[in-house]
Amino acid sequence: MAGPRAPPGSARRRPLSGSASGQTEGVRSDPDRSPADRSYLDHAATTPMRAEAVAAVTAELTRTGNPSSAHGSGRAARRVVEDARELIAARLGADPAEVVLTGGGTEADNLAVKGAYWARRDADRRDVLVSAVEHHAVGDAALWLAQTQGAQVTLLPVDAAGRLDLDAYAAALGPRSAVVSVMWANNEVGTVQPVRAVAEAGRAAGAVVHSDAVQAVGHVPVDFAASGLDLLSLTAHKLGGPVGVGALLARRSTALAAVQHGGGQERDVRSGTLDVVGVAGFAAAVDVAVRTLQEEAAREVALREELFARVRAAVPDASRHGASPDDPAAGLPGVLSVQIPGAPGDAVVMLLDAAGVDASTGSACSAGVTAPSHVLTALGVSEAEARSVVRFSLGHTTTAADLDRVSAVLPDVVARARAAAAYV
Amino acid sequence: MAGPRAPPGSARRRPLSGSASGQTEGVRSDPDRSPADRSYLDHAATTPMRAEAVAAVTAELTRTGNPSSAHGSGRAARRVVEDARELIAARLGADPAEVVLTGGGTEADNLAVKGAYWARRDADRRDVLVSAVEHHAVGDAALWLAQTQGAQVTLLPVDAAGRLDLDAYAAALGPRSAVVSVMWANNEVGTVQPVRAVAEAGRAAGAVVHSDAVQAVGHVPVDFAASGLDLLSLTAHKLGGPVGVGALLARRSTALAAVQHGGGQERDVRSGTLDVVGVAGFAAAVDVAVRTLQEEAAREVALREELFARVRAAVPDASRHGASPDDPAAGLPGVLSVQIPGAPGDAVVMLLDAAGVDASTGSACSAGVTAPSHVLTALGVSEAEARSVVRFSLGHTTTAADLDRVSAVLPDVVARARAAAAYV
Repeated sequence: MAGPRAPPGSARRRPLSGSASGQTEGVRSDPDRSPADRSYLDHAATTPMRAEAVAAVTAELTRTGNPSSAHGSGRAARRVVEDARELIAARLGADPAEVVLTGGGTEADNLAVKGAYWARRDADRRDVLVSAVEHHAVGDAALWLAQTQGAQVTLLPVDAAGRLDLDAYAAALGPRSAVVSVMWANNEVGTVQPVRAVAEAGRAAGAVVHSDAVQAVGHVPVDFAASGLDLLSLTAHKLGGPVGVGALLARRSTALAAVQHGGGQERDVRSGTLDVVGVAGFAAAVDVAVRTLQEEAAREVALREELFARVRAAVPDASRHGASPDDPAAGLPGVLSVQIPGAPGDAVVMLLDAAGVDASTGSACSAGVTAPSHVLTALGVSEAEARSVVRFSLGHTTTAADLDRVSAVLPDVVARARAAAAYV
Repeated sequence: MAGPRAPPGSARRRPLSGSASGQTEGVRSDPDRSPADRSYLDHAATTPMRAEAVAAVTAELTRTGNPSSAHGSGRAARRVVEDARELIAARLGADPAEVVLTGGGTEADNLAVKGAYWARRDADRRDVLVSAVEHHAVGDAALWLAQTQGAQVTLLPVDAAGRLDLDAYAAALGPRSAVVSVMWANNEVGTVQPVRAVAEAGRAAGAVVHSDAVQAVGHVPVDFAASGLDLLSLTAHKLGGPVGVGALLARRSTALAAVQHGGGQERDVRSGTLDVVGVAGFAAAVDVAVRTLQEEAAREVALREELFARVRAAVPDASRHGASPDDPAAGLPGVLSVQIPGAPGDAVVMLLDAAGVDASTGSACSAGVTAPSHVLTALGVSEAEARSVVRFSLGHTTTAADLDRVSAVLPDVVARARAAAAYV
């Protein structure tokens, strides 16, 4: 599931117009252009910090004290962390003792998949079941367990909307099932999974059940206790908090081996100095995102549908991937995956960029990867079609003005992208 | 090397005066007391953000864009990261391509020890050699490799000053040596290791040689190229940058397996969204710490020696652990490990705390652990003596006023701690 990536330090040396093809050469935007001049429609990659999170971070930035220290400065720092932990737990239906703070979603996913596997391994349960549309943080962690740690990995199929095939899942479960990992909502097409059913069946089979809810928390209702899950990953920067901090919600009864060893912080399963500043910003963002979720989700769904209508007006043969728009609970409010026949997705993204619109062909984490998205191919989209997909993702700062810009530039962008494809 | 730790969420429920013994009951300070009223002498646990780092973080806080995204906002974010990477590399004698950004020092240490071991394992090199005074992030990672991954771990002895026994090291090296990890400078007693000799001997034996330089970078001169090391860990918050960001310097020719899997950022060995804000603050802190190192080190050495003189004036039978103060290059400028016969270290720390002085019995990461420090016992200090040690660690905000406070309160603090010990 991994592809080639650029080494550190190489980005500056890569010519800015390097990978463009045909007529799209040299059209990249000036990255120093004011953000006010741009329409940011890539919130699923990362979303701007919310004002509440900026305030919380700023307030803590000059605090001194390691939360693991016994003295007054340390205890004051610990109090900030524990208040944040309680707030995160309260907003997500968890107990504070179930919140294991991490350095982000990728680390939480690695801890869940590997930590649960290692904790179960002695019981001769070696099967790891993951959906075919997982983020690489889950998928590659599982594959690594298979390559080096004796795991047997099963990729669970999804339907054309990206929804888990529950029958195939039930058939794959058994007495050797160690860990199940099925994401709450998909980052590329927005499909929300039947998490409760996944948890119920998996736990009945004796497996530890994890869900990567990085794209879900703060965007659709997430209640850890009600989900029936053992483990749930989230990250701050997808919901308006800072990058570099996240959490794994973990039932106290769920055995979990440490993945990162050291000083023994966080129940001894996640060592590393606790990031007071980041955790404070994380909690502030979770708080506002969850409290305003219903209203904001309705607003984004309306914008999303309006955006798709405008795309269709500009490109009549455009279609969409993911859950049905008729069922609001079936998809993330902000994610719109659009198929534009004949227009290479990377060319469309580049031309949109030049016109001041930030969009994506899929996961930012796989940027630069030339293989078609494993998510789209799992949905049954052909490789050729998968190369003509653009993801717009809306967020808390998106307004109708962003849609106006897309409407204004899309006809020319698509015409040029199609011409470039024909030219090649 | 690990001990019992409190679970997440438990800190708030622990009574503030709970673990005190005898007459030290109920003397804990008010953690909301203004920091200006306190003397912070625990810089080795974490040191305040430098003004340059606060400015860099504040400037980036409202930026939007994932450095892995191809669009304009993403490329602008990537430029900030690459500029920071170049600055960090330039200040530490490394090439930008050698800087692997991580979520902190613990993660860098885990990546070094496990990643190098996994990358070498096929060559039937299974021996992992670590000094007996490593931080838990190295020591526990190595022990875990022994417990679960087929490694053979050798703990390398140190002398009474905490300096590696090079003869024992040479004897332990061999054709099965996979990874060597010897810290640059010790967090509890400040001893600086002969890193260059360690690297030379280890590499001659075909091992990958790592040094945990978390306490060293920004405090003593560190030049990665000149060190001869394959791998070197550092973290931002020990030198005036934010918590939650660090780096592993890694030679391009050194094989390293990923420890955290996902989107493939950082040469595919460290996945996870790059933290633009944190990295910017990290680079600003490295820059100022290294540029001002010589002057600041001289200032801290003078303060440290003055502090020890005052401690001796108050407690004539006090002694110190670590490298000889006669050799300025042998120890960290800011670390002073003091033996106070008959006074339990935890009581001294608690009474100092009540008097407005933040100090430590040792590593913050092991706070709450009741076992005596493995560092001190490796130096040949008896368990009983090791329980009567206090670490003062000075930093860039330390002034003579902090020493005045210690002088003023120490006689009474030590008398009360000794009385409490006698009472028990």
